[in-house]
Amino acid sequence: MGSIAEYESDIERQGLLEGEGTPSSVLDAKASRKTRQRRFIHFSVISIIIYVILFRFVVHGNFTKKSSGKKNVIFMVTDGMGPASLSLARSFRQHRDGLAIEDILELDKHLIGASRTRSSDSLVTDSAAGATAFSCGLKSYNGAVGVNPEKIPCGTILEALSQEGYLTGLVVTTRITDATPAAFSAHADWRWQEDLIAEHQLGHYPLGRSVDLIIGGGRCHFLPTSKGGCRADDLDLTEVAQEEGWSYVANRTSFDDLELGKNVQLPLLALIAGGDVPYDIDRDSSVYPSLEEQVKTALTALTKATEDSEQGFFLMIEGSRIDHAGHHNDPAAQVREVLAYDKAYKYVIDFVKNLDTETIVVSTSDHETGGLVTARQLTPAYPDYMWVPQALVDAKHSGEYTRAKVARYSGVDLEEFVKTEVLEKDLGIKDYTSDDVKFIIENKQNCQDYVLDMVSKRSQTGWTTHGHSAVDVNIYGYSNKQSTMLELYQYLGGNHENIEIGKFMETFTGVNLGQITKIIHNTRHSASASEEKFKLLAEDPYHHYGPLE
Amino acid sequence: MGSIAEYESDIERQGLLEGEGTPSSVLDAKASRKTRQRRFIHFSVISIIIYVILFRFVVHGNFTKKSSGKKNVIFMVTDGMGPASLSLARSFRQHRDGLAIEDILELDKHLIGASRTRSSDSLVTDSAAGATAFSCGLKSYNGAVGVNPEKIPCGTILEALSQEGYLTGLVVTTRITDATPAAFSAHADWRWQEDLIAEHQLGHYPLGRSVDLIIGGGRCHFLPTSKGGCRADDLDLTEVAQEEGWSYVANRTSFDDLELGKNVQLPLLALIAGGDVPYDIDRDSSVYPSLEEQVKTALTALTKATEDSEQGFFLMIEGSRIDHAGHHNDPAAQVREVLAYDKAYKYVIDFVKNLDTETIVVSTSDHETGGLVTARQLTPAYPDYMWVPQALVDAKHSGEYTRAKVARYSGVDLEEFVKTEVLEKDLGIKDYTSDDVKFIIENKQNCQDYVLDMVSKRSQTGWTTHGHSAVDVNIYGYSNKQSTMLELYQYLGGNHENIEIGKFMETFTGVNLGQITKIIHNTRHSASASEEKFKLLAEDPYHHYGPLE
Repeated sequence: MGSIAEYESDIERQGLLEGEGTPSSVLDAKASRKTRQRRFIHFSVISIIIYVILFRFVVHGNFTKKSSGKKNVIFMVTDGMGPASLSLARSFRQHRDGLAIEDILELDKHLIGASRTRSSDSLVTDSAAGATAFSCGLKSYNGAVGVNPEKIPCGTILEALSQEGYLTGLVVTTRITDATPAAFSAHADWRWQEDLIAEHQLGHYPLGRSVDLIIGGGRCHFLPTSKGGCRADDLDLTEVAQEEGWSYVANRTSFDDLELGKNVQLPLLALIAGGDVPYDIDRDSSVYPSLEEQVKTALTALTKATEDSEQGFFLMIEGSRIDHAGHHNDPAAQVREVLAYDKAYKYVIDFVKNLDTETIVVSTSDHETGGLVTARQLTPAYPDYMWVPQALVDAKHSGEYTRAKVARYSGVDLEEFVKTEVLEKDLGIKDYTSDDVKFIIENKQNCQDYVLDMVSKRSQTGWTTHGHSAVDVNIYGYSNKQSTMLELYQYLGGNHENIEIGKFMETFTGVNLGQITKIIHNTRHSASASEEKFKLLAEDPYHHYGPLE
Repeated sequence: MGSIAEYESDIERQGLLEGEGTPSSVLDAKASRKTRQRRFIHFSVISIIIYVILFRFVVHGNFTKKSSGKKNVIFMVTDGMGPASLSLARSFRQHRDGLAIEDILELDKHLIGASRTRSSDSLVTDSAAGATAFSCGLKSYNGAVGVNPEKIPCGTILEALSQEGYLTGLVVTTRITDATPAAFSAHADWRWQEDLIAEHQLGHYPLGRSVDLIIGGGRCHFLPTSKGGCRADDLDLTEVAQEEGWSYVANRTSFDDLELGKNVQLPLLALIAGGDVPYDIDRDSSVYPSLEEQVKTALTALTKATEDSEQGFFLMIEGSRIDHAGHHNDPAAQVREVLAYDKAYKYVIDFVKNLDTETIVVSTSDHETGGLVTARQLTPAYPDYMWVPQALVDAKHSGEYTRAKVARYSGVDLEEFVKTEVLEKDLGIKDYTSDDVKFIIENKQNCQDYVLDMVSKRSQTGWTTHGHSAVDVNIYGYSNKQSTMLELYQYLGGNHENIEIGKFMETFTGVNLGQITKIIHNTRHSASASEEKFKLLAEDPYHHYGPLE
């Protein structure tokens, strides 16, 4: 965790997210008989054409097309979100808000397929190989950031579209130098080379600057340790960036000056947290914007900036910390991360509906994290069929937050503090035992797994690992142009390898990633000796760039 | 499909009726540039009409239709199969057979949506409530077999179609009196009332006989204990059935006499196992037919019998024991069960492709079982991202089989037997410890969980329960008529409640389940005193109707 003192802040209890809309079930539709008959006739007359389309293109779809006309591409990643995360978050919200079982997530309304996720060297991918499958359209090894299995830098969709004149953006809730955004905008043999990644992201490599908008955490690798950052060298990349013309935002106040995108000078480097942005369950909105606010800002700025352009924009948005909640096995943090993402997703969809420019939205995951299961057997006795969302409603803070709170406590009555402030208030647990309290006190610096297991047990949430799993993840798609919606069904409906998602974006926009690969051939991508220290950090399972230490 | 029949000949002329096959990846297509251009123009011209269709019907679809024309409905259930089961089985086969990563299951080619599975009284359903959601199109409580939450018998799709003149069939690998087939063909307050369920299945209730073909396990509840069965009364229902005109098959020889359906006299009662049919990994094919053989027999017989009829058939097929392998936490048995089902599913698809009668195939799961995860952390150290399919290749038998084998051993050297016959030969485990052997010997009657955990650990397969979980399950759909394929996308594409699948079958065939509900109002559905003993049995987590005891 190290030197990230500047990220310390009070994280206060936040209000819960308000619910989403209630879609009416198709089965409950009250269309009049007449309307139905009219629709049926309409349907019958047109259906022969549908046959041709669906079967020639959707089922056996194999046409390719060149780009023509202005387009926007919005690619969204739910890092570490598997199918069970959806079930968990949806039921949690239904329970918390007293909603009907038909009340589903915005994502649910756009489910079109599933993605297989393995990397070139493992049945279980990491986020770097997962993101490289999307960005370069090829399988690479775990840890690879925008390089192929031979460690040769590969042209990414973001770079190719930038070369075509698109404006490009990256919006994340983790460090902007972390694997997913990095794989679109940098090239490194290993994901822990975040110093190098930051340089590439600013354009310091053969292709020059390809990114026009950055909103995320991660000042750490842009600043030297002397300024509270964690670079191995003495560079202050935030200064370098500003000299090179970037607008720089490093706090809530200057983020607010952007007026949610209405007052943005591109290129924009908005590093709104030192490390990761706090989990939504812990987030102090006076200090950190929500993912939805980040997305609003990006969409408004990019739309405005491309208003008179012949080309649109490419925007990558990541709900980054769903993954972290999976790694931590933190179900209460995870459901809030999924709902925060779903809220941002709904904003995207509503925004795109009102755009004239042909726009696609694809949302998928790189992999599942944690082996999350919405059921957990607590004793050898045959289990009741149930899980308990109320336990997640009761928990008001993440394990990351509570661990830091316990670790920092310097008062005189730690036992009372653990009981009332942490277990009862933060985690909503009243039925703790004296052994629980004792364990937490004795493991003051490292009680995170323990307290989170208390929450998971009470909600009967199961986990099988602190790493990733190999389950297929969902693909969601939307376009404001129906022909493009059909293309989405055609290319990404059903079951696909993750690289097909990357290749779809290439095909849809008509760019050629191979041409970029040639240009960036000489990019430095291997780690320097000074960067090796990050490798060791990365190998520490409890290393993270949290906001609280 | 009504007025759309007239278009079918046109479609055939256009050569659009060829089936799925392996849709070559859209990305690898080698269509010539010219063809692509022509297709693109074609696409562009027609796309405006597609807008209307996709957005009015597919996305916001809410038209209803009446049945007209001959139809077949094939409804298939993968009991207990969640998304992770697919990933596990697919990767297992790729690894075992040295196949490319593009080699996917037949099911994968027909993925259209996902189903939410909760029951009326729990976020985690059981198979009875799950099947009742499909059969009656309504949410009921866990344990409910063809009754609503008020314990009132509800008309099922099988019954309604039988009344319309369809022939009907049930094909399963568990007992035919078990929850899934029961919910289509019987009405009982509780799933353990299998004596009553058998009576209903033969037609002993107000509606009379609705089932024309039964192929599955479960002689148990058709025979009194005096004849090796387990009925609480002295009835021999196999005799009663034969007196009432059923053909009766109770072993492999008489099953073979059916000539895979070419020589079947309906109604057919084929009870090919006393309890459950053995897992496919253990199955002696000289004693028990495969699910594919059962399906072949059913499809051929029902097609032949409806050849000159104005109505087609309804067939429910269940891969029943995927669920059991989940309950047992037996990954080696599960992957074989999934692959056996996928083989049967492929047979169905190929068969349907060659049928003239409009036919739909819907395959889904009632729920996930076991909390299966394709990743498992074995030590506190941060896990490598991997799981190990070779361990499942090495295991040649199920835990159910090995437990029975150990329990029955009467030789003089149990230790040597456990080492060489069980651990090495059956489970493919060479690196066992003396503690492992000791535990198995000391728990001779009850070593199943232990040996299966040995297999799961070595494959790094995770489980979180011996019960069910609440993750969404997949929906697969196929039709040999393209207009019907569109209906499948329209009704069942995307994310749905499980009851919508039942209601789709009702809408698609134009029947009215409410009318059946009225007819069967006086059906006896509560348990008699003598049946209560089965309740106690059902509450024993290790009770099952295995073939080996």
